Amino acid sequence: MKLLEELQQALDADRVSDNETILEQHSKDESYHTPHLPEAVVFPESAREVSEVVKLANKYTTTVVPFGVGSSLEGNVIPYKSSIVVDFSLMNKVLEVREKDFLVRVQPGVTRSQLDKELKKYGLFFSVDPGADATLGGMAATNASGTTAVKYGIMRDQVRDLEVVLADGSIIHTGSLAAKSSSGYDLNGIFVGSEGTLGCFTELTLKVYGIPEHIMAARASFTSVEDAVEAVIAILQAGVPIARVELADAQSIKQMNHFSDTDYKEVPTLFLEFHGNEAGLKQDVEFTREIVFDRNCQDIEFETDTAGRNRLWEARHNAAYAYIHGHPGKKQMVTDVCVPISELAGAVKDARKAVEKSGLAGGIVGHVGDGNYHILLMIDVNDPKDIEKANVVNEQIVDYALTRGGTCTGEHGVGVGKRKYQEKEHGPALAVMRKIKQALDPDGVLNPDKVI
Amino acid sequence: MKLLEELQQALDADRVSDNETILEQHSKDESYHTPHLPEAVVFPESAREVSEVVKLANKYTTTVVPFGVGSSLEGNVIPYKSSIVVDFSLMNKVLEVREKDFLVRVQPGVTRSQLDKELKKYGLFFSVDPGADATLGGMAATNASGTTAVKYGIMRDQVRDLEVVLADGSIIHTGSLAAKSSSGYDLNGIFVGSEGTLGCFTELTLKVYGIPEHIMAARASFTSVEDAVEAVIAILQAGVPIARVELADAQSIKQMNHFSDTDYKEVPTLFLEFHGNEAGLKQDVEFTREIVFDRNCQDIEFETDTAGRNRLWEARHNAAYAYIHGHPGKKQMVTDVCVPISELAGAVKDARKAVEKSGLAGGIVGHVGDGNYHILLMIDVNDPKDIEKANVVNEQIVDYALTRGGTCTGEHGVGVGKRKYQEKEHGPALAVMRKIKQALDPDGVLNPDKVI
Repeated sequence: MKLLEELQQALDADRVSDNETILEQHSKDESYHTPHLPEAVVFPESAREVSEVVKLANKYTTTVVPFGVGSSLEGNVIPYKSSIVVDFSLMNKVLEVREKDFLVRVQPGVTRSQLDKELKKYGLFFSVDPGADATLGGMAATNASGTTAVKYGIMRDQVRDLEVVLADGSIIHTGSLAAKSSSGYDLNGIFVGSEGTLGCFTELTLKVYGIPEHIMAARASFTSVEDAVEAVIAILQAGVPIARVELADAQSIKQMNHFSDTDYKEVPTLFLEFHGNEAGLKQDVEFTREIVFDRNCQDIEFETDTAGRNRLWEARHNAAYAYIHGHPGKKQMVTDVCVPISELAGAVKDARKAVEKSGLAGGIVGHVGDGNYHILLMIDVNDPKDIEKANVVNEQIVDYALTRGGTCTGEHGVGVGKRKYQEKEHGPALAVMRKIKQALDPDGVLNPDKVI
Repeated sequence: MKLLEELQQALDADRVSDNETILEQHSKDESYHTPHLPEAVVFPESAREVSEVVKLANKYTTTVVPFGVGSSLEGNVIPYKSSIVVDFSLMNKVLEVREKDFLVRVQPGVTRSQLDKELKKYGLFFSVDPGADATLGGMAATNASGTTAVKYGIMRDQVRDLEVVLADGSIIHTGSLAAKSSSGYDLNGIFVGSEGTLGCFTELTLKVYGIPEHIMAARASFTSVEDAVEAVIAILQAGVPIARVELADAQSIKQMNHFSDTDYKEVPTLFLEFHGNEAGLKQDVEFTREIVFDRNCQDIEFETDTAGRNRLWEARHNAAYAYIHGHPGKKQMVTDVCVPISELAGAVKDARKAVEKSGLAGGIVGHVGDGNYHILLMIDVNDPKDIEKANVVNEQIVDYALTRGGTCTGEHGVGVGKRKYQEKEHGPALAVMRKIKQALDPDGVLNPDKVI
C-alpha cells in the first residue's frame, strides 16, 4: 500500500499503523453511533508532520479525521469514509504558561486534567470542564463547555489563538495573544466548533483564570423541576455571580445515590458553586438561601470544605457513569439541547414525558444556568427497537428546543448524530456554512460528512 | 438616474436621497480619513427593504455601505467606491426585552444610550460602552468594546443572534436564543467585526446583565506607567473581579483637568470600578488598596456615591473631547492597538517616546485590563507634514504591538486605516479571510475595499 509507505516516510515508521487493534481503537467514540475502521492511524509530533499527512491525503484522495481521546458523543470522530485518523496523543505538551497574561499555550493532545495539574503550580486554573477528561484540541473542536460555563464561558470564549493545518496542508494562526481584537475576521470563532471539518488544530493558546480565593458548594432539593429552574432565574436576576448551577432530576439522583453511595433526597436537585472573596461569598450564600426558599426549596446544604465539595461534584460528574453502572450490558445514548432559560422548565418536563413514554430507563441532568440539558438513555445497541425509541425521544426534545429559539446541541457538537437537524435549525444560514466549508476545503479532505 | 428611481420604488420616495447635504453627512466618519460622497443615501424601515436595496446594488453593479451614526474611527463607513449608503436611523426600535433570558432584541439603529434607558426599567443594563453613543449595529460591525470589557467582554461576546442581509439580498439568522451552541459553524462570531463587508445587520439579539447591587469607583495616582500596569496585573492575579480599569497618562490628565474642571494630580492615573455585593466589594476595595500601595501608588480616592462616580467617568470618557477642545482648529487622529498585558507598560512607554519625537500634541489612554490603548494625536488635516508625523507614530505603535503578539486594533476595527497591517498581522490567515469574503460576496457588493 503506497499511502502507508509514504506516511511512514513522512513520519517515523512506528508512528504509522494499520494494526487491527489500533484501527479498532480509532473506529469509534463514546457514543452509540456505529464504528467504522480507518485505513491508517498516524501519531504526529509536529504541525509539519500533520501538514505532510494532510498533503498525502490530498495526493491519495483519501481524508483526514483528527482524534483526541475519542470521548465525543455524536460520532464526531468516527471515520466513515476512507480516512487517515490523526491521533494527537504524542502532541501532549504544555508549551508555555504566561502567568501575567493569563494565557497558556498547549499542544492539542494535552488533557484537561493534565493542564489543570500544571496550572495549579501558578495559582491558575482552566475553566472548561466537560466531565470527560478530554483533550484541549478535542474540546476546541466541539466547542465544549460544561458546568462552569455560566460564569467563565464556553470553550470558544477561552481560545485566543489556534495553530491550524488547513485542507491544503498550509499552516495558519487564527488569533494573537491580545485579549481582544477587531482586526480582520474572527477565525478563532469559526474554527472552534468546526469539529475537524475546516482544519486540524496543532497548537492552542487559551485563557486561564486565577484560582478563586474562596469556593463554596451547595445542594438544594426541590419539589418540582419548575421550582428549581425558577430559583436559578431569580439567582441570576439578583446578580449573584454563581460559578456552577446544575440540575439533576429525581431519577438521576437515585442513580447517583446508588453509584456514589450518597443519600441525597431523590427529588429534583440543584448543585451550586460560588466563587469569590470570603465576605462576598457569605453575602451571596445568604441571599441565595433566601431566594431558593422563596421558590419552595425543601432544604439546602452547604459544603464549605474541599472534601465535601469534591464529594458533591464527584457525584454530579459521575451521573452518566452511574446510569451505565446501573444498567449492565446496555449502552448510553446521551443527547444534548439548549433552550432559552425561560423555556427550560417546560423543556425538562416535556423531556421527562418523552422518556416515560419510550419505556427506556433514563434521566435528565443539565447546566441549568445556560438552559442546556442532557438526557441519558440506556439502550441495547443491538436491539433496533431500543435505538428507534431513543431516536424518538431525541427527535422530540430537539424539536421542542428548535421551536422555542433553542439549539439542537449546546455542547456535544453535531458529528453525525445532529446533522439531520441542521437544516431546520439554521435555515438559509446553512448555505452560508456550506459556502465556508467549500471555500476552505473544496475537495472535502477534512472529517467528511460531519457537521454540515 | 434609473437606480434612484428604482430605489424610490422599493422604499418610499422620501426615504431615498441624493441631496448634497445628506450625501455629505454620509461621506465621512469621526476619523481623519478623507471623505467621499456616495451616489445615494437610503433610509430603510425593514430587512425586506434592505434586501431590495442590496438587490438593486447588484443590478446596477454599485455597492452598499451600512451606516449607523458615523462614529467609526478608521474610515469604516466612508463610501470610497460608487455606493448606496444604507442609513439605519429609522430602524431604531427596541423590539423585545426577554427579562428571564437576559436578552434584548433590537433594530440596528438603536443607540447605546437609548437601549440603556429602556433596560433600566427592568433592572438590566447593556455592558458594552465604547465612549461614543454609537448604534448597536455599528458596534457589532466593528466589534466594539470599551471600558467594561475586562469584566463583561466585548461586543462579540454579547451577540446571540443577528438577522443579516447577505450580498445577494437573502436574509439569514446567524444564531439562536440559546446561551450557547455547538451546532454548525459560529456565524455570530464571523459577522461581528466584519464591518459591513459580509452583510448588513437588520436585527440583533444581545445579552444583557442585571444592574449590580453595588458599584464603587476609584482613582489611583502613580509615579510611572509601569507601576500602574503592574498594579493592574496584580489586581487581576488576585482574582479581584474588577469591572473597569482605565489608564490615562499625565498629559491626558492635564487635558481632562482643563476640560472637566477637575484637579486630578497630573501623573499616570488608573480609573477603577468594582461591581458586586456590599460585603464583597468592601473586601475587594481593601485588597485593591493594599495591592496598589505595594506598587508605589501615590494615593487612591474612592467614590462611593453615584454623583462622584459619574463625575469620575465623565472626565475619563471626555478625554478625547478634552484634547479636541484644547487644540482648536485641529483634528484628532485616534489610533488603537492591543498587546498582551505583560507588554503594556513597555508599549505605552515606547508610544510616549514616539509621540514626543513626532512633536505633535498627544496623549495615551487605555483599557489597561485588556492591554488595549489609544493614542490621541492632534493634527492639522490640511498639513501633509502633520499627517505624515501621525502616520509615523501609528506605524511605530502597530509595529511594536505586532512584534509582541498583539493586534493592530483592539476595538476600532480595520476600516481603511488599518488595512495595510493585515498582511503583517495575519500572515497566511489573511488568505483564509479573503476566501470567506469571496465565498459570501463574490462580486464585492458589500462595503468594498474595507478590512481585507
